[in-house]
Amino acid sequence: MRIVRYAVDGVRHYGELEKGDARIARFEGDPFTGLSPTGHVDEFGDAVILAPLERPRIFGFAYNYAAHVDETDRELPDVPVCFMKPSTAVIGPSEAIVYPADGELIHFEGELVVVIGKEARHVKPSEAHDHILGYTCGNDVSDRIVQRRESAYGTLLIGKGQDTFAPLGPVIATALDPSALSLTTRVNGAVAQSASTADLLLTVPELVSYLSRYLTLLPGDAIMTGTPAGVGPIRPGDEVEVEIEGIGVLRNPVVAESS
Amino acid sequence: MRIVRYAVDGVRHYGELEKGDARIARFEGDPFTGLSPTGHVDEFGDAVILAPLERPRIFGFAYNYAAHVDETDRELPDVPVCFMKPSTAVIGPSEAIVYPADGELIHFEGELVVVIGKEARHVKPSEAHDHILGYTCGNDVSDRIVQRRESAYGTLLIGKGQDTFAPLGPVIATALDPSALSLTTRVNGAVAQSASTADLLLTVPELVSYLSRYLTLLPGDAIMTGTPAGVGPIRPGDEVEVEIEGIGVLRNPVVAESS
Repeated sequence: MRIVRYAVDGVRHYGELEKGDARIARFEGDPFTGLSPTGHVDEFGDAVILAPLERPRIFGFAYNYAAHVDETDRELPDVPVCFMKPSTAVIGPSEAIVYPADGELIHFEGELVVVIGKEARHVKPSEAHDHILGYTCGNDVSDRIVQRRESAYGTLLIGKGQDTFAPLGPVIATALDPSALSLTTRVNGAVAQSASTADLLLTVPELVSYLSRYLTLLPGDAIMTGTPAGVGPIRPGDEVEVEIEGIGVLRNPVVAESS
Repeated sequence: MRIVRYAVDGVRHYGELEKGDARIARFEGDPFTGLSPTGHVDEFGDAVILAPLERPRIFGFAYNYAAHVDETDRELPDVPVCFMKPSTAVIGPSEAIVYPADGELIHFEGELVVVIGKEARHVKPSEAHDHILGYTCGNDVSDRIVQRRESAYGTLLIGKGQDTFAPLGPVIATALDPSALSLTTRVNGAVAQSASTADLLLTVPELVSYLSRYLTLLPGDAIMTGTPAGVGPIRPGDEVEVEIEGIGVLRNPVVAESS
């Protein structure tokens, strides 16, 4: 099932995107407390597709593809490298990534994103699947200058946490095997990242298990699994697309911050 | 006003702690969408005092008192050093800080915590006060071993984000001037930290303004302002108290994680 969050006439719903993407079967409720069919069908053309999660907690992982670690001139980490992005960074498909007025070097990072469906604490990798609702595409937009300045002191927030720095969408694909999905990022149509989630250093079940060893994962949490090689800069006027097999295309324009 | 969140007979309310702390005037609603008096008064002895915020976003600052920077053998940072703690780390007064089964060096950090009352974006320091609801005490519990391992790769999550690592409370004190409050942390009754918020390197208005320059602060967000000198280890069996003038005492026992 491909779950979509959308608005029609300003009212927000969850729904199931039907084959061919022409229609959305509207649900009552949300995927975390329970969805029930309404029998109502919306035309895709009448719907504004929203980020699939409203203000989620976002946990991110870094240095989780060897080829990307290599391009950053670092050694493979000996500990999972993780951080949070604030919920206010989330935007949906088609919404604009705002290039900060004082931004100097802003990078895209295409990523597979795990959506937690059931609370998870002390979960083994073999049990992780039971706590996952599905998967979506994400762009871990990063201000490299601020990131480097913060990381020199051992933390990271503003470098990855600015408003609009977490595009998510377009759907939550359930019943998807995350172990070998092709992931492609394009900037203005040109392929920048092309990889397979088979190359994740820590797999999806390992990431869920690791976090749950220390903290309680909640329904609706998003886990960004890290970016493959090929990251690079974006500028106002660009369009970034993150496409993952079985999920779809997350497409966002980049606009300059209005002063 | 000292706003308290509490439970009586398993039902949660916000209320105003009356002078002498013997009674709580019960409110309907919450401080972020609106409080209205109910006329009902609860006896303090019948109430379980809860963390004043339920699953808040928590933004933390590090290296924000010169004497603490000095004890960590670091230079004063040239950029605000900030991070997030997950909402699931929050516990209330009297709840136990759980010492992890694999913990080797867990530290307390007594801190003044700002509670945001109104959405804030691009707020000047001079305007910050209008967006603040009040202040509470916090303990930025830190697993130093994990923190150092993560920080070596420029991020920080598990080191400060484990369940129970963010005790908050006991009240939200409104109408409090945060610029020169005495802050005392005691372990088993012995004073470990004794400082004044007058020594904050970045003041409360500057912290709010800095975050709001990059991201939207939301009602109910908590900002931990950094810890003064005197941090140190805690062990199962200890009791930690963070006391701030005009707010009260946040007291938490430390217990070993059950395996």
